[in-house]
Amino acid sequence: MPPIGAKQRAVGLVVEYNPFHNGHLYHLNQAKHETGADIVVAVMSSSFLQRGEPALLSKWARTKMALANGVDLVLELPYAFATQKAELFASGAVAILSEAKVDCLHFGSESGSIKDFHHLLSFMRENREPWDELVKSHMQQGQSYPKACALAFKSLDANTALSLDQPNNILGYHYVKAIADQGSAIVPYTTKRLSADYHDTTLPSSSIASATSIRQSLANEPDGSHLIKHVMPESALQELMTYQTDFNQLHTWELYYPFLQYRVLSSSTSELASIYECEEGLEFRIQETISRSSTFIEWMTAMKTKRYTWTRLQRLSTHLLTNTTKVEMNSLHQSSLPYIRPLGMTEAGQQYLKYLKKHSSVTILSRFAATDHPLAKTELKASRSYIAPLPTSQRMAQIDKDFSTIPIRM
Amino acid sequence: MPPIGAKQRAVGLVVEYNPFHNGHLYHLNQAKHETGADIVVAVMSSSFLQRGEPALLSKWARTKMALANGVDLVLELPYAFATQKAELFASGAVAILSEAKVDCLHFGSESGSIKDFHHLLSFMRENREPWDELVKSHMQQGQSYPKACALAFKSLDANTALSLDQPNNILGYHYVKAIADQGSAIVPYTTKRLSADYHDTTLPSSSIASATSIRQSLANEPDGSHLIKHVMPESALQELMTYQTDFNQLHTWELYYPFLQYRVLSSSTSELASIYECEEGLEFRIQETISRSSTFIEWMTAMKTKRYTWTRLQRLSTHLLTNTTKVEMNSLHQSSLPYIRPLGMTEAGQQYLKYLKKHSSVTILSRFAATDHPLAKTELKASRSYIAPLPTSQRMAQIDKDFSTIPIRM
Repeated sequence: MPPIGAKQRAVGLVVEYNPFHNGHLYHLNQAKHETGADIVVAVMSSSFLQRGEPALLSKWARTKMALANGVDLVLELPYAFATQKAELFASGAVAILSEAKVDCLHFGSESGSIKDFHHLLSFMRENREPWDELVKSHMQQGQSYPKACALAFKSLDANTALSLDQPNNILGYHYVKAIADQGSAIVPYTTKRLSADYHDTTLPSSSIASATSIRQSLANEPDGSHLIKHVMPESALQELMTYQTDFNQLHTWELYYPFLQYRVLSSSTSELASIYECEEGLEFRIQETISRSSTFIEWMTAMKTKRYTWTRLQRLSTHLLTNTTKVEMNSLHQSSLPYIRPLGMTEAGQQYLKYLKKHSSVTILSRFAATDHPLAKTELKASRSYIAPLPTSQRMAQIDKDFSTIPIRM
Repeated sequence: MPPIGAKQRAVGLVVEYNPFHNGHLYHLNQAKHETGADIVVAVMSSSFLQRGEPALLSKWARTKMALANGVDLVLELPYAFATQKAELFASGAVAILSEAKVDCLHFGSESGSIKDFHHLLSFMRENREPWDELVKSHMQQGQSYPKACALAFKSLDANTALSLDQPNNILGYHYVKAIADQGSAIVPYTTKRLSADYHDTTLPSSSIASATSIRQSLANEPDGSHLIKHVMPESALQELMTYQTDFNQLHTWELYYPFLQYRVLSSSTSELASIYECEEGLEFRIQETISRSSTFIEWMTAMKTKRYTWTRLQRLSTHLLTNTTKVEMNSLHQSSLPYIRPLGMTEAGQQYLKYLKKHSSVTILSRFAATDHPLAKTELKASRSYIAPLPTSQRMAQIDKDFSTIPIRM
């Protein structure tokens, strides 16, 4: 035990836990071991995720999964950062972890070598302008942003060891960059991810599976807990099954489609054009395609072009659903972090939070009722959109949870 | 038979047919008889009604009911006029009937004497200013608009035979006034309504019932066709039952409540304040009360004050659901009628329409695909909001009907 009031060594993780599985557990333990931390602080996406999807389970259920499996303190990654491409996503997460006074940040990557990340950062400090030019030119030729980045690196420096067309390398690079840009004292660590491919859609026989493959199994077979029990900790599986029973379903895009279609068809094109990430006349394409698509996947397929990645379009769908405008989002990104918000904590997390309350420069916020900051307003709007398709009694039980509930203690 | 190309004598009716019943049939026959008309032209509210409710059945189903029971030509009363208090509602209906070249307009009223309406009109020409002052002052004392009107008349002229706190007298007065204001050649007729009370909620044993009591019976007992078969023509009852089977339900406010709640909770207060009829800070009350109300009726009860009639609040709910703004609505009311739109016609109605096509000064519009007038855009938005809560296959079948369907022929 450290002396009372002294700060324990803390490692920060950036997570979605959608849902929590053995790979997450492995990473968590490895992070603690490699950094010598006493405390694990996870900054976790709230209701909607980086790839522009509703989280399968509420942030409260995912917080319980995290606390039952070794995380000491779960902090909310607000909607305004959770639903962004890597750069903004990472800068929000790092800003929160800095305010949470973690000593280090540990992330999984395809590379596994922190030196490669530092090297790339130096390279970019020197070659930013030509690199930007190349990215722009590749995008003008119709490439997606990630692909354009990768091509730009190839043109400028064949010796860059870090491949940026792999999603966790991109995120990792932006964590390291955000730490440097924000002048943070956080020390970054990385190890190679166990799961070979983030995009795996079939379940392996081993105990480590991608979250994508777990979601896919649940989508194909809603009663398929027997299919995934070897890849999830018992407590997390239990939480998942309870949620599915209580709410009658998990949150998938299809559940939201009638609401999204209603929203789009009852909006004018100029209202659609005011939504964040609705660029280049997409509002006309949105309205025309959605009126003839009977499911979300049908709509996305109709919307898809080489110009826009699936993820980009899903993020746009998320902002349409939550009615998040350009003006609103840009003003949130321009203001400094107003608060950090614990969603849950263990006994040890609670002690750590006591220390934070004395030393953090921002508010530690437990309920939205206690603030009227626009960041909280946008979050409340997102969480109320998140519960829109639930049956009445469950919807009503959740509707003011963000507004009035205090963090979970476990 | 009249000579080909000659105009037949036509009587105009202003209707909702929600649903079509024996009282409507009686009125229709009486109108034809009293005016000596060959042709009946009904201008019918589209998807949402004057009291701020979704119509029980689609405009297409209600058009079929009308055509099967003696109406020759059904014209759409657009959303922009159908969901308004008496003055605007009547001015829209009269403008359309004028363009439809009807010779007379026949309406039911509590009074039953057309002389009383003319007398009131003259009285108002002379006393408008003091009357306006009195209405304003009564409203400032917390009276509703209809009540304030009635009180103003009492103060100014105890001899006014026409009681303006009865809904069909108010409508009738505004028909007569609109005819005069618009310099229309239409001759107004009225007879006393058979059904004593517009607001009756229990079914009588006789063959004439109010639409309210029919809707109430259906709400209490969805399979209650045996309860209402003595008060509706066989064909209309059949249409109602078929609709209920095909669409799984009739359209009631409760069906829309999850969508309305979602809309309100994902809007900012300034967005709510931009909605038509959202006045005097109601946006805060709307958002606060809807987050704790699990049904539409619960919400309306929470919203209700002496200041606002139930109908006024229901109309506001309609505009919230359809996302109709003040700017949008006011600009529609300021522009002149761009088209009249037939929803359906009999053989005789078709002949009449041929005459109209030659002599009307506005477009005869059959599909919204053929126009980009804002009036059609608002209508399309309303009809797409109207079908939002239907199950997917029925929703998809209806979604573009307004856009591409031509009028029904029967």
